Amino acid sequence: MSQYDCIIIGGGLAGLKAAYELKKSGSSVLVLEARNRFGGRTESTKVDDYWFDLGGQWMGGTHKLLQETCKELGIQSFPQYDEGKHVLEINGKKVYYSGNISTLNKDYNLEGLSESIAKIDELASELDPTKPYAHPKVKEWDHMTVTEWTSINVPGKDARTIINWFIRVCLAAEPSEISFLWFLHFIRTAGSYSLLADIHGGAQQDRLIGGSQQISEGIAKKIGDTNFCLNSPVRSIYQDANGCTVKTDLTTFRSKFVIVAIPPTLAGRIEYKPTLPHARDELTQRMPMGHVIKTIVIYDEPFWRKDGYSAEALSDVGPIYICYDDSSHDDKKTAIVGFIAGQPAREWSKKTPEQRKQAVLDCYARWWGPKALKPTHYLEKDWKNEEFSRGCYLAYAGPGVLDSCGAALRTPVGRIHWAGTETASAWIGYMEGALESGIRAAKEVKDKLLSSKL
Amino acid sequence: MSQYDCIIIGGGLAGLKAAYELKKSGSSVLVLEARNRFGGRTESTKVDDYWFDLGGQWMGGTHKLLQETCKELGIQSFPQYDEGKHVLEINGKKVYYSGNISTLNKDYNLEGLSESIAKIDELASELDPTKPYAHPKVKEWDHMTVTEWTSINVPGKDARTIINWFIRVCLAAEPSEISFLWFLHFIRTAGSYSLLADIHGGAQQDRLIGGSQQISEGIAKKIGDTNFCLNSPVRSIYQDANGCTVKTDLTTFRSKFVIVAIPPTLAGRIEYKPTLPHARDELTQRMPMGHVIKTIVIYDEPFWRKDGYSAEALSDVGPIYICYDDSSHDDKKTAIVGFIAGQPAREWSKKTPEQRKQAVLDCYARWWGPKALKPTHYLEKDWKNEEFSRGCYLAYAGPGVLDSCGAALRTPVGRIHWAGTETASAWIGYMEGALESGIRAAKEVKDKLLSSKL
Repeated sequence: MSQYDCIIIGGGLAGLKAAYELKKSGSSVLVLEARNRFGGRTESTKVDDYWFDLGGQWMGGTHKLLQETCKELGIQSFPQYDEGKHVLEINGKKVYYSGNISTLNKDYNLEGLSESIAKIDELASELDPTKPYAHPKVKEWDHMTVTEWTSINVPGKDARTIINWFIRVCLAAEPSEISFLWFLHFIRTAGSYSLLADIHGGAQQDRLIGGSQQISEGIAKKIGDTNFCLNSPVRSIYQDANGCTVKTDLTTFRSKFVIVAIPPTLAGRIEYKPTLPHARDELTQRMPMGHVIKTIVIYDEPFWRKDGYSAEALSDVGPIYICYDDSSHDDKKTAIVGFIAGQPAREWSKKTPEQRKQAVLDCYARWWGPKALKPTHYLEKDWKNEEFSRGCYLAYAGPGVLDSCGAALRTPVGRIHWAGTETASAWIGYMEGALESGIRAAKEVKDKLLSSKL
Repeated sequence: MSQYDCIIIGGGLAGLKAAYELKKSGSSVLVLEARNRFGGRTESTKVDDYWFDLGGQWMGGTHKLLQETCKELGIQSFPQYDEGKHVLEINGKKVYYSGNISTLNKDYNLEGLSESIAKIDELASELDPTKPYAHPKVKEWDHMTVTEWTSINVPGKDARTIINWFIRVCLAAEPSEISFLWFLHFIRTAGSYSLLADIHGGAQQDRLIGGSQQISEGIAKKIGDTNFCLNSPVRSIYQDANGCTVKTDLTTFRSKFVIVAIPPTLAGRIEYKPTLPHARDELTQRMPMGHVIKTIVIYDEPFWRKDGYSAEALSDVGPIYICYDDSSHDDKKTAIVGFIAGQPAREWSKKTPEQRKQAVLDCYARWWGPKALKPTHYLEKDWKNEEFSRGCYLAYAGPGVLDSCGAALRTPVGRIHWAGTETASAWIGYMEGALESGIRAAKEVKDKLLSSKL
């Protein structure tokens, strides 16, 4: 049996970037991907020659690694459309507005919104993004939920609703389910609350012509197709003094090291020998995936633009809680991308696609009139259906998790190293975080390979 | 390949009881057990002809199924020793007392303790133990942690400490990690707070001569040894129109139905085809195991008894947070059983057995003098080490879990039925709950077998 320097489990952005980095440095690699495709939580689909993204989509203003990677692969980007008025619909009131939410003081009770966001940014900035669990206030911040924090610290009712809404659409779970420290860590790795929320300069700044799955495919192509097995879910990883034995249903492979580049909960479904240390095993028991259903509605024309709307809406009514204009770079294919996230996603996922479609169209008609009821296409992707994601966008940590087993997110277990966007120190949950985690894990393995040769 | 009526996964009390019930009704069964022994979270070990329990141990006053089962198997019980003074050591103060904690008002600030416990019992009594998630207040109770509830509802500082301590020693996790509704459900299925806490009439009323693992062994013997495979962790369960295909590493079995009688998080590590429905998969991602290290210190003589102590202590200092006299029925082998639970267990598990031993002895010496430093034996069991338990006593649910996927605990998935103490409606987390769940799951399968014959 041939022995690889490193086997990488997971052919998403994290795993592929790790494999590419190792290959570039002269190491032999094998990527084992459970699905029949690359890309993990990115997936692009074609409608009449235009690519739409059913998974990760935006390239943010500070996503330096993603920008470099796209440049290297010749993937072009274009700005997210956001001209015209946005919709804010919370606590029973709907407002069309331009500019910033915080200017809507006469319509909503936003008391404390700006101050709370500033406070969140300030607290987040105190964290070390490589070890949030090391902050002196871990016992306080990690043992309260975001709901607890906002109920104490955000006076305005509508301000609280907006922050809770933000959690739902950014983390795909409910504020009552998420540790306040995990939320701060999420903010910290992105840079700030507004960088997460914003289009210009923020997380939703640019889109990619041809969709985001081509990034994974492009990296895979550079690595070379002798280094991959698709349709190969890994069932066990055994370590011994000389290396690792990695088994899929049909084949057994050997390597000096392994990088596991899949979400913690899925990593927990692999059998390990020796068994994982307590903290790592516990982490896999305690970092569930969020739940999001992404929808794309394609229309003959961008009727909202003509009526002066941006197609950006923020709602606590749903079923769409956030949406954006999703038209092609040349405006020839016009669409709106909308998200059902958190607990509502759990509920809507029980209904039929037809029911969801109608509810989404009704929602858009509520905001932008009856033209919204006549789309040419409706696409949707419920990421809970994916056996090898079992949720999106990312895993989250409830109260107590970071405090008791946060370090296990990235601490190698013998010859096993951990990657995946959840393990990043920049932009966790984003494509940028996936790439950063792959580079970091590859470096850990490169260092070990190097020292074993000395 | 022969086809069984039912394959049962897990040879603990739940699985064995289910298998026994099915066998008695004339069905063909096969039990697949991952370990090389029966008993699951019960395990007895022998020291000089006396059996000590490293896992589940007590038979409570209202544990009717357990009492019947022991009677049927000829297993004798004897009362838990509790004569003499107990220790209460919280918030920096140590008191020796007789009777009830609530009488220690002059020593501690117990304001609201009795009232809070009464309130907890009252709220718990409103729940349907077969569906706690159906209570009208689920959105409130399931989206707050126990810490949130106690901080609002329990005025006395020491009263709060005692309730939080109770969570830790009963649920083996921290109050900040546990949904208030899950806690109420735990109380509800036991009957009341005091039934959980008490010896006489309560959960710690009696012990078993010969230990508790013999219950599983006794049931297994009655089923007959052609119906078992030990050392057989199940890797996959595939369902089709005619039945189920169950695979271990070496063998493939067929059955009409399957009962999975292992904790949710371990059930999630099995591969399913078709994949599990969202809510069930999510449940397996969100019900981690508690962490407890059980210690038994054996002494030449019961020195504490001679000094007027019961060896019952309740402490928030640790490393032992609760302990009891663990002497044999004939008092010839005298011992103290003590528990390290919750977050402290996570921390103490990182140390060596020698370090833990010394800390436990020091703890007992602090309460009962230097004779505690000279044991004849020290036994311990850290249940996180067990690949096929990965924690004890039971799984717990953080905020939001029951609300979003609580029904999946017991709802069958096609031909797959769920058992295990977590799925009980009486005494979840206890041997009694395991037996109840096994009987219920067996009945579900019996009903289906019957209707398929009609």
